Amino acid sequence: MSDHPEASVTPVEAYEPPYYVAVFTTVRAQEQSGYSETNARMEELVKDIPGYLGMDHAQTPGGLGITVGYFRDADSLTEWRTNAEHRAAQKRGQTEWYQSYTLHVAKVERSHGFTRP
Amino acid sequence: MSDHPEASVTPVEAYEPPYYVAVFTTVRAQEQSGYSETNARMEELVKDIPGYLGMDHAQTPGGLGITVGYFRDADSLTEWRTNAEHRAAQKRGQTEWYQSYTLHVAKVERSHGFTRP
Repeated sequence: MSDHPEASVTPVEAYEPPYYVAVFTTVRAQEQSGYSETNARMEELVKDIPGYLGMDHAQTPGGLGITVGYFRDADSLTEWRTNAEHRAAQKRGQTEWYQSYTLHVAKVERSHGFTRP
Repeated sequence: MSDHPEASVTPVEAYEPPYYVAVFTTVRAQEQSGYSETNARMEELVKDIPGYLGMDHAQTPGGLGITVGYFRDADSLTEWRTNAEHRAAQKRGQTEWYQSYTLHVAKVERSHGFTRP
């Protein structure tokens, strides 16, 4: 459960729309060799993408992972998707780490935050 | 960790865009009395909304929850948001169960699914 050591209980805030979310849901395969290192590297690498706003991640005990990446615009998401090192990680994900995954890329139209006074 | 007994390791599929995602991230408060029952009721109730496509949920041990609801269009999301019983649950969430939360409502432009052969 600690594959994402940087995850905290402070979720990404509600930015002023429009911005983009990439919802990435995963079911892990048995083979996880190298996953943690690559994942940590990706979490660092994405921070260099202009327009990257943040990321939330959680996982069920049953093995369903949800990662939501937040980006200022479609261009910043494209830059991340086509990053060479990220591409290599995506390929390893398909052949080694994931049994299945789903990606939903969406433009935020409305957002709202609540914090108890 | 078992507040969502219906959660499985089969995430919601990649539908044909456009459709909507509602990304709801939460940090729980200490008071959780009645949460599980209400949450279970909401998971049933939302299934009656025309255009409801499904829901994914996961939670970190640290208390960050991520729920992603999938809807066919903005109208179905509005119907869910304004449902009277759901409204009452939202109010209890603010006054009892959540320390903070963030909602991002977004229109899916691109989606992709991968399943290992």
